Amino acid sequence: MKNKCVIGITIGDPAGIGPEIIIKSIINLKITGFDFVPVLFGSVQVFEFYRDLFGLDMQFVPLNKKEDIKYEDKVYVIDVNPEASFSVSPGYPDNNGSLLALEAIKQAVYSALDSKIDAIVTAPIYKKGINEAGCDFHGHTGFLAYLTKTKNYAMMLAGGGLKVVLATIHIPLREVFGKLTPDRVYEAIKISHEGLRMAGITEPRIAVCALNPHAGEEGLLGNEETLIIKPAVDKAIAEGINVTGIFPSDTVFWDTLQGKSDIVVAMYHDQGLIPIKTLAFDSGVNVTLGLPIIRTSPDHGTAFDIAGKNIATSASMEQAIKFAMELCRGKRS
Amino acid sequence: MKNKCVIGITIGDPAGIGPEIIIKSIINLKITGFDFVPVLFGSVQVFEFYRDLFGLDMQFVPLNKKEDIKYEDKVYVIDVNPEASFSVSPGYPDNNGSLLALEAIKQAVYSALDSKIDAIVTAPIYKKGINEAGCDFHGHTGFLAYLTKTKNYAMMLAGGGLKVVLATIHIPLREVFGKLTPDRVYEAIKISHEGLRMAGITEPRIAVCALNPHAGEEGLLGNEETLIIKPAVDKAIAEGINVTGIFPSDTVFWDTLQGKSDIVVAMYHDQGLIPIKTLAFDSGVNVTLGLPIIRTSPDHGTAFDIAGKNIATSASMEQAIKFAMELCRGKRS
Repeated sequence: MKNKCVIGITIGDPAGIGPEIIIKSIINLKITGFDFVPVLFGSVQVFEFYRDLFGLDMQFVPLNKKEDIKYEDKVYVIDVNPEASFSVSPGYPDNNGSLLALEAIKQAVYSALDSKIDAIVTAPIYKKGINEAGCDFHGHTGFLAYLTKTKNYAMMLAGGGLKVVLATIHIPLREVFGKLTPDRVYEAIKISHEGLRMAGITEPRIAVCALNPHAGEEGLLGNEETLIIKPAVDKAIAEGINVTGIFPSDTVFWDTLQGKSDIVVAMYHDQGLIPIKTLAFDSGVNVTLGLPIIRTSPDHGTAFDIAGKNIATSASMEQAIKFAMELCRGKRS
Repeated sequence: MKNKCVIGITIGDPAGIGPEIIIKSIINLKITGFDFVPVLFGSVQVFEFYRDLFGLDMQFVPLNKKEDIKYEDKVYVIDVNPEASFSVSPGYPDNNGSLLALEAIKQAVYSALDSKIDAIVTAPIYKKGINEAGCDFHGHTGFLAYLTKTKNYAMMLAGGGLKVVLATIHIPLREVFGKLTPDRVYEAIKISHEGLRMAGITEPRIAVCALNPHAGEEGLLGNEETLIIKPAVDKAIAEGINVTGIFPSDTVFWDTLQGKSDIVVAMYHDQGLIPIKTLAFDSGVNVTLGLPIIRTSPDHGTAFDIAGKNIATSASMEQAIKFAMELCRGKRS
């Protein structure tokens, strides 16, 4: 019988800070009493390279992906590409590394779908490198959705006591006006609801942001609240989802921090990211909601400029692992 | 010789929480060692009404507006409309009260222009009431600019360790794209520079926000950074102003909190207000930059619904007075 959460962690780009923050996170979390079974997807050789480079203390136990976990106090590694050999140059990504990062994600997803692991935490990858290695890849989230055949999914950002889901993401602010539709807002609300239920919150309380200052001040400062957001909120309420709003975005985050809601649905990237990053710059976490598996990640990139220098902070990775554990416990309860 | 800062405080709407938070602020600030000379612009009768209603301990010394301040340990009141009598009903504004609020602002401004007082702190007024009383009035800021014959001015918001100036204010988000021009961004930068210099910061470091996520990601996520914001930044730099940017708005506030700049110029209302209100919901301060006089105010309204109940928090008013004192000291140094 499995008691501890088994957390699969993908290596990310081996020339980035991924392996470093993975090792440091496990050490820091174990010291501070967070108990879980780490299963690293990547390469024993790469992990050992960084361990030795920084003089860290960790033994890796190779695990065959079909094999079951026998001991709960080990750090397991699944060599996703065992025939390959890597000459790791921190800060200098290459094709081999890109393909390793990609294969690690793939195998971690299949392990999670097979219930061999309880959750996936992904270290940062180098999107451009993966594309240059000949793979059509638009980022973790889309790839995970593809592998798990998921149609509706959303990125949730967590940090500083806040959880936020975005209705629109990486588009120019000007395009928000074309892209924001009642359907899109409704989907963000619904995925927030289902995602938090999956995480063990029986009746998630969802606060919805306005698009305009002062929530449009009854039409004086914009009408998207009435035309786009309200129909979505009404539809969600009719389905029994606990939604409140439409709130001015300069007050909703404070109210949420005071405990008035569990999650905020923001209309555009900076509206949701400003409060998270202002409160928790280096410890924010991304969570993909809507997948059949649990997936979290730190909210930063590969940081090639500081790779191999033993100066990367593992704060965000630690939060990502903790968040994955929280979601696992929620799912089990 | 005057040592202490003389802070003029306008009563605001007498049916709102203004008089209450003024009295409470003075008590709290004096207890905690902030030493200044308060000169209240309004009505002794109204201040005494609230003092007695809440059982607070404060003696008001009537002051003729031409008179000089003799004692530094008194709370002075200038009766701006001495012939009027008020029947104060907390929560129920009337014409008399609206006109009192307006007259208090007018007399405080003239006292500041005459150097009788060092700064003005304004309590919240009821804009609609002032209009209904027959005066064309569009808010404190415009009125102060009109009285002081100021053309270029801007609202600065301060709270939670941040100072922010907005390039556009109360307009629908959609209209930002028409209203945001290089001139407008430049003016916001220039006023930030001059305002902080007036406050004693010799070379203010000004950080400028992008409009689009990831600062437009080199044009992939929008071009306003290149077309609108960059020309303004370049012009300011050419004039010797210490400007940096253009920064993604989800990281600039954290960096500013770490001490990398003194003030942030934001492109639209919520971009600047989200971080301030998330960090300092009930203690934010507004400061009008560009005026020939110092003016601050709490960043909330009259709160008629809680007036007269002795439950209003004076946190924001206290911060506004402290900020005014800081600006006075900066001006003197």
